[in-house]
This record gives sequence, C-alpha cells and structure tokens, in this order.
Amino acid sequence: MEQRILLTECDDANGLIAKITNQCGLFSYNIVHQDQFASTETNKFFMRSVLEGDFTYQNEFLQSIKCIVPENSNVKLVSRDKKRIAVLVTKEAHVLGDLLMKSFAGSLDAEIIMVVGNYPDLKELTEKFNIPFHYISHEGISREEHEKRICEVLDTEDLDYIILAKFMRILTPTMVAHYPLGKLINIHHSFLPSFIGAKPYQQAYDRGVKLIGATAHFVTNDLDEGPIIEQDVIKVGHRYDATKMAKAGRDVERLVLVRALNKVLNNKVFINGNKTVVF
Amino acid sequence: MEQRILLTECDDANGLIAKITNQCGLFSYNIVHQDQFASTETNKFFMRSVLEGDFTYQNEFLQSIKCIVPENSNVKLVSRDKKRIAVLVTKEAHVLGDLLMKSFAGSLDAEIIMVVGNYPDLKELTEKFNIPFHYISHEGISREEHEKRICEVLDTEDLDYIILAKFMRILTPTMVAHYPLGKLINIHHSFLPSFIGAKPYQQAYDRGVKLIGATAHFVTNDLDEGPIIEQDVIKVGHRYDATKMAKAGRDVERLVLVRALNKVLNNKVFINGNKTVVF
Amino acid sequence: MEQRILLTECDDANGLIAKITNQCGLFSYNIVHQDQFASTETNKFFMRSVLEGDFTYQNEFLQSIKCIVPENSNVKLVSRDKKRIAVLVTKEAHVLGDLLMKSFAGSLDAEIIMVVGNYPDLKELTEKFNIPFHYISHEGISREEHEKRICEVLDTEDLDYIILAKFMRILTPTMVAHYPLGKLINIHHSFLPSFIGAKPYQQAYDRGVKLIGATAHFVTNDLDEGPIIEQDVIKVGHRYDATKMAKAGRDVERLVLVRALNKVLNNKVFINGNKTVVF
Amino acid sequence: MEQRILLTECDDANGLIAKITNQCGLFSYNIVHQDQFASTETNKFFMRSVLEGDFTYQNEFLQSIKCIVPENSNVKLVSRDKKRIAVLVTKEAHVLGDLLMKSFAGSLDAEIIMVVGNYPDLKELTEKFNIPFHYISHEGISREEHEKRICEVLDTEDLDYIILAKFMRILTPTMVAHYPLGKLINIHHSFLPSFIGAKPYQQAYDRGVKLIGATAHFVTNDLDEGPIIEQDVIKVGHRYDATKMAKAGRDVERLVLVRALNKVLNNKVFINGNKTVVF
Repeated sequence: MEQRILLTECDDANGLIAKITNQCGLFSYNIVHQDQFASTETNKFFMRSVLEGDFTYQNEFLQSIKCIVPENSNVKLVSRDKKRIAVLVTKEAHVLGDLLMKSFAGSLDAEIIMVVGNYPDLKELTEKFNIPFHYISHEGISREEHEKRICEVLDTEDLDYIILAKFMRILTPTMVAHYPLGKLINIHHSFLPSFIGAKPYQQAYDRGVKLIGATAHFVTNDLDEGPIIEQDVIKVGHRYDATKMAKAGRDVERLVLVRALNKVLNNKVFINGNKTVVF
Repeated sequence: MEQRILLTECDDANGLIAKITNQCGLFSYNIVHQDQFASTETNKFFMRSVLEGDFTYQNEFLQSIKCIVPENSNVKLVSRDKKRIAVLVTKEAHVLGDLLMKSFAGSLDAEIIMVVGNYPDLKELTEKFNIPFHYISHEGISREEHEKRICEVLDTEDLDYIILAKFMRILTPTMVAHYPLGKLINIHHSFLPSFIGAKPYQQAYDRGVKLIGATAHFVTNDLDEGPIIEQDVIKVGHRYDATKMAKAGRDVERLVLVRALNKVLNNKVFINGNKTVVF
Repeated sequence: MEQRILLTECDDANGLIAKITNQCGLFSYNIVHQDQFASTETNKFFMRSVLEGDFTYQNEFLQSIKCIVPENSNVKLVSRDKKRIAVLVTKEAHVLGDLLMKSFAGSLDAEIIMVVGNYPDLKELTEKFNIPFHYISHEGISREEHEKRICEVLDTEDLDYIILAKFMRILTPTMVAHYPLGKLINIHHSFLPSFIGAKPYQQAYDRGVKLIGATAHFVTNDLDEGPIIEQDVIKVGHRYDATKMAKAGRDVERLVLVRALNKVLNNKVFINGNKTVVF
Repeated sequence: MEQRILLTECDDANGLIAKITNQCGLFSYNIVHQDQFASTETNKFFMRSVLEGDFTYQNEFLQSIKCIVPENSNVKLVSRDKKRIAVLVTKEAHVLGDLLMKSFAGSLDAEIIMVVGNYPDLKELTEKFNIPFHYISHEGISREEHEKRICEVLDTEDLDYIILAKFMRILTPTMVAHYPLGKLINIHHSFLPSFIGAKPYQQAYDRGVKLIGATAHFVTNDLDEGPIIEQDVIKVGHRYDATKMAKAGRDVERLVLVRALNKVLNNKVFINGNKTVVF
C-alpha cells in the first residue's frame, strides 16, 4: 500500500477536520496518522494527514479537497520520496560531515545534490562521498556578484531545500527573495534570540552563561530572526572559554540541524507568521 | 463556550476519524484539539477530541457515537472538572509536599480529598493544608487487614485516582484487584526496568550508573511492571553514594509524578496492553 | 570529626595549592574534597577545600594561610551550619512554596528567617510553616521609601542571603548597594540574556522560541545582568501561548533557583568579575 | 610551555595532596588543573594533575612521587599526544562514521589506526578516510579462532584503546583477558542495567518505556557488566516501535561513545572496582 501526505493550510473554519477526513474516506484512503493545529493568533488551520491507499485518482481527490477548504488555501499531496537538498558551507566540517554521513548511511530522508563553499576547505570531504562540490570564492567580487554565482549553480538543479550549514556569510535581501520562504534553512550557533549576529560563543563567554545552544530556522531578511524550527542547549561552566564553548557547541549545532531537517523533510513543519508549527 | 473531552477507545477500523468528527459537526461541536493513535500491536484505536459547544444534547451525541464505533468500545465524554484524588504515603515528604503545594497554588487539576499514611509522620504537613490525614498503622495486623482498613477509608469517598506517593508497601493482588486498572498510580524511584524492587538507589550505587531516574506507572499485580506513564533521569557521578543519590533523586521523583498526573488528570493517557498511549 | 570549609580567593600565583594544602597537613586537617580554578581572564585563583579535623586552633590556621597567600586575598573558614535566609515575594507561590517545603522537609541547607511581600497574598502560605511574613505594600509611597521599609525589616536579622523569589520589583541602585555583592540572589523567568526585562514569556511567545528557561543570578545594578549562577530550559511548542509558557516555566524557575541555592548555601559559588565559578 | 598529566592512583592516606603538590612545586611545575577523589568504598585515592613546565627531569620527578605515595601505587606522567585507537565494527555505520568524521575534522584526540570488521560492509566508508580496514569473517571458524585472528591484526600495532563500535559479537573471556582492563571500550545500545544482552530496543519496546538510552563501558568478562563511563537517554513514546527506537537510539549511542572517549582520551577516567571515577 502506498502512502502520501496531505498538507492543508488555510483560514480556520468549522468542520474542517470532518470534511477533509470524510473526503479521505470517500476515496478509500486510510488515515495512518494525523495532526492538526488551529492558531488563534493568525486564525490559520494546519493539518498533516498521512494517507494510505490507491492514489490513481489523487488529482481528483486533491481537487475535491480544494473545493472544501476556504479560498486562498494551500493544499498539497506529497509523496514520501527523498527530498533534494543543496548545502552551503564555509570552512567548518562538522555539520556538513554529519549530513554526508547520515546520507551515506541512509538515515537522512534527502539526497545531497551538491555542496557549495566560499572556501575550498570542504571539497575533499564532500568528494569522498561522490557529491559535487562547487567552490565559489567571495574574494575580489561584490557580495551581489558572489550570491549571483551561487544562485546560478544552485538553480541548475531542482532543489527542495537549501541548507546553510555554518555558511558564515549574511545573505542579502536579494538572495533571500530569490527563493520562496521556507526553502532556505540556517543553523545558528546560539540559542536565539540570545547573541544574535557575529561571534555568539564569544558573546556567551563574555556574559558568563551556563548553557549554550543552537537554533535551526528558516531564513528571512531579518538577520537571525526567521521562524525557529528547533533549538537545544548544552551545559557549560567556568572552565569554558569561547574556543572551548565553540568546540562543545558543535555537537549541539549538528544535532539541532539534523532534528530540524528530519521534521522539514517529512513535511512536519508549517510556517505560521514568524513562527513554525512543528508536528 | 463550554468544553468537553470525547475519549474513544475501540478496535481499529477504517473511517473512524471521519465518522466521529462528522458526528461532532452534526452536533455543532467545534474540535479544538484532537489526537489519535492506532496501535498495530493490539489493533486498538485511541482518540482524544477536545470539543467546544453546547452540550445540552450530550447524551444523544454520546449515543450516536456508540452506534458508529465497533462493539466493545469504550467511549466517554468527560468534563474539565477537577479530578478527585487520594494520596497514600509513608514517611517521605517531598512528593506529597509537591502535590499539596501545587494543589494550594491552583496548578494541579485535582482536589486532594484525603491523605492516608501507614506512619503518622506526614499528618502535620497534610493538615496545614486543611486536608484530612488518616493514619492507618500496619503494625500488629496482617497485610490483608491493613489494606482492608485503607480501602474502607478510601471507599468513603468518590475518587478518580489513588496516588502512591512513596508509599513503601507492596500491594497485595487483592487490593490491586479492588480497583479498576488505571485508578492506582505509583511513583517508583528508579528508571524502570532497572532496579526493580527494594532499595533502588543502593542498587544504582552498587552498579555505578551515571544516571538515576524515576518512573510513574499504573499499578498492576506484577511488582513495578505496570504500564509506564512517564520517566526521567538526572546525572550522578562518582561522588554520589546511595544516600546522596536518594536525595538527588527526590526532585526527579516529584517532577515525574506531577508530569504523569498532569497527563492523566487531563485524560491524555490511555492504557494499551501493558503500555500507555500518552497524548 | 568536624568539617569546615576553607575558601580561598586571591590573585593567582605559583605554588598556591601546595602551600595551602601543606598548611592543612601541618594542622592535621584531612582534605575530604577540594576544587580549584585559576581564571586566566581575571588572573584570580579560587579554591574550596573541605577539611576534617580538630578545629581548636582554627584562628591560628586561618592566620597562617593569610600569611601564605598574596595580599588583598579573601580567605575564610566556614562551618557547615545552616545559612540564614530571607525571601522576597510578590504574588506567585511556586518558588516560595518550594523553599518552604524543602526547608520543612530538611532538604534545604538554610533556615528561612522571614518572608517579605509587597502583596499580602503569600502570608497565609508562609505562616502555615510558622515563619514570619512581613507585608510591606509599595502603594502610595515612593520606591525609595518602600525599599527603605523592606531593608529595615530585613536588617533586624542577621542574614546570609536574601532571595528574590519572583519579587516583581526592580531594585534601585540604593538598595542594591545596601548589601554586599553576592548577598542578593534573583530568579529570572527567562534564559538570560534572552528576554531581559518585563514579560519574558510574552516576549518568548512573540519570538516563537522552542525552549524557555530560567536564570538564577546575583543581583547587581544592571537589570538582569548580574553574574549567572545556574540556568536551565524546557521544551515548548506551537501549542503554548504566553500563559501556558508561564505555567510550564514555573517548574524550571523553582528548580533552577533551588539548584543555585544548594550551590551557594554550600559555599560552592565564587564571583569572578561579572561571572561565577561554581564548584 | 609544555603540559603533562600526572595520574596518581593509590591507597588513600593523609597528606597525599600536599605531598604531591609540594613535589610539583619543587620541580617548578605549575598545576594548571587538578581533581582528586578518595573512595570510601575501596579506600583508594585518585588524582589527575595537569602540570605545566620544563619536563627535562620528568623521570626524577616521577621517581620522587613514587617515593611519596603508598606501595602498590599506580603513578604515571602522560603527554597530551593523541592516543592510538582501533575500532571493531559489524555492519552499522553511525558510530564508526562519527569517529571517522571527528578524527578527520581534528576534533577527536585520537588517531584511528585501523578498523576491523566481521562483515565487509564498512570497508568502503573506512577507506574513504585512508584508514586500513581488515575484514575478518567469523563464518566457518570457531569463536576462538575468529578472535585469535582479530587479536593478531590488532597486535601488529601499538594501541592505547580498542573501541567496540557496535561490534555485535560477545567477546570470550580469553579475548577479554588478552588485554588489560581499561583497554577495551564498548558502546551498549541500552541504558544499562536495563535490557542487558540481545535486542535491547525490542526489549524496550516490549516493556513500553518512555526513555531509551546508551551506555559506554569498559569491557569485562561479565556481559554488559563492566565499569560504566557514560550514559544518556532520549525520549520515546507510543508511536515508536522497536525499529524506530533503534533509529532514534543511534544519535544517543554515538554521542555517548564520543563523550566517553573524550574523557578516556584525556586521561580523565579511572577504574575503581566495578565503577569509574570520571573527572
């Protein structure tokens, strides 16, 4: 039996669950798992239904759902196929390394189509796994020109998500606007909104915090202000300087990104204003 | 607008979500929140639906749901009223103390109707909060006679749950059978199934573990083998002897019990064989 | 055998551990436990030595240590007696309640000498435990006058620490300066430095964070900027509004404060610039 | 300035800290960091001192320390050089993959000298990182013969530690006895002592636990009973079957092993009877 995931995002209204699940029944789809949320803040309704059945008439099914839900809805029926991702990096290996290893071991629900770096440092590592690495230096060219070259390479492929895996460049509004909201995902090396911007571990050391963290979020024009998908922290103490914090932080960075990605790749994340709904 | 919670527990079948949510719509109940789970292991279906609306015809609604679900189902429509609980204790104050304080502060969705102790140690503490304390000593009488006296006191009140808050006596099958499964809840001072039985902290120390824990579970005839509701752990190290572990463990014991209770008191816990479904 | 704790805080220098431990040997004190830290940032040395022996000549011992360490050192030999604390509160019961309960159960290494509230709400709870409650309203008087009255009451007793247990007033520099740094301890209901100031849970909700936290810190003139003693977080999600976050946050607030206090009351915390050393 | 670590393990006695730190002073070694523990259970004393200075006369220094401590002591002065390790594997890639990646990124204080597998599955992955992989099948030969061949390969190199990274074979007492206690380190995929032996995730599922874990321990003859170095857990729930638990458990397995290794590789772990002291 095949599985598809029905994703519903619309203005909240009475009876939505009943109407949609009814329709699933009419098409003989079994609901394996379902989660829903109505946001009182935005008055939006979100539902993720894992359906099992024969999807020969999936277009008709989707059409019938669209007739049920309010106007301006976003309804999709997606397969469980692996998503296609690109990874942007600078010099640090740990997040990319984790993605490569999980992809190699078959435990990441995505295929890494390419890696793009503004330094060549991670070329060797990437190519060990037979994945193309594009080295696009930012030196000697404008920020706009640099991003243009990156986008040109990225846009040669059909990508579901672009992951900034410790890509130590701040994207311009032009590049952010080049992709739909939700396509660019960043891992930030602090427990946002603490220590926004540069050198968060130095900031954390200077403040004398007892926990450091990481935040995976969708990228928007506001630096480090995009909708948060996942966060976690680890304990530090008086024996940690900024360097030791950075080293300790690597494990939480890669774990948080992978956890966020697992949710995103399984279509469990909706964007709700500047927040996320994570089923 | 009033809220009620519809609890459905039945053999799994196709279309249950649609049929039940449809019926909610026919009675103009808005589904504020819903969670469901179909167990492939027991072939049982569990659903918890928080409904909002006018419940004048709630009996007719419940009757209509019962016509929809398979035979031998367990369907209930419960209010959000505070549950009525009794607490069984021995000498340790921390779990009872936490329940009393949370109840006093209004952050426990239950009313503590009485406390029963086989020692008088916690009488003073209980009565500070104007709650009746029944001291029923086990000395000089048989286990059966002791339990009989306890049950007699408990049964003078209509109770939803009986909490064993570090009640250091093993219940006989007779007392366990005296109550329906799901009514007796115990906090065990170890991360079950490690260290079943007596002196778990001494066992933990002897083994040299680096984490100790606590487990809240429903009571069955098999000692420390009932369905687990909630567990948690804390770090210990080589500087902890059994006494220090016991002291450190108190915080996790009371937290785990309170978390389990919050779930149970809000009707979020179903028993599924020897396991639980916790929404 | 009696135990005392030797606390050494001085400019770092070579051979300090050897010299001090030697002196302990000359007075036949056994070192049960010792921890030390040299801060490269402030060039300060901190050591906590738990000594066992006969302390008849403790003054001579302390004098001999003072001859060894650099000038301007802070050396103390303290007993393991319970510390004397006062608690400042407003209306929320959970932190005070936890302190009262732990004190009653004998698991807090402090005696609560008094509770002072700017509202009368927690008088009943405090007096259940036979502890004096002083209601000092801030209404109709200046901030300075209010604090003056509070300090007058506090200063009638010899106190080791003053705990702000959800005392929802910002202290003036005058009151802060009235006590030595390290005597005032606050629990802040956010994971500092996120959400400094008022309504941190509302701020957290608005930002859509996935973790909320609490911070125990020494009070200084800079609002929420004093040296951090202890922090922790708990997970929240899209179903939490600010009120639900506040409710969930209570458990982490009281746990963090109690953990910080346990460290402070056992003389395990040193202040090092705007940070802490926590052994 | 060079650093060396002085490791002292001996019967407990009065004045050990003073005598040893004095000696450090006489040789003009600065004590950068020191931790010590006296076990009341075994009456053993453990100390780890990080020394900084000129180690030209290190033999004389070590000799002088040996004259100070009780007989039958174990005193070592070790460098901060990377340790040399071998990794034993079967088919699962995640633990080995993490070690390879951390070693490649320079964040593991060890050099992986070789990998030995009883299946060829991880040969390709290992060789990507230019590390020799020895495939030694267990098929068609006795357990003793298989282990003999493994030991022969291992013994061609000078190794500090041998890591069982999901090596799914139970070692015979002969192989265990072939190496000194403390050289063989295993990662067990459960929170020991829960679920000793085979298929711990299936056992965990059957019991309905709400947390699953991993344990890193030194290998002894008693299956899964060796001294525990590090443990951790993650939350699971009713939606996890044994397979999903195993998948979720992989992250905690590799994290626990790497954390244990970091401690061991930095000489922070002592064996104390069937337990460990972890500084």
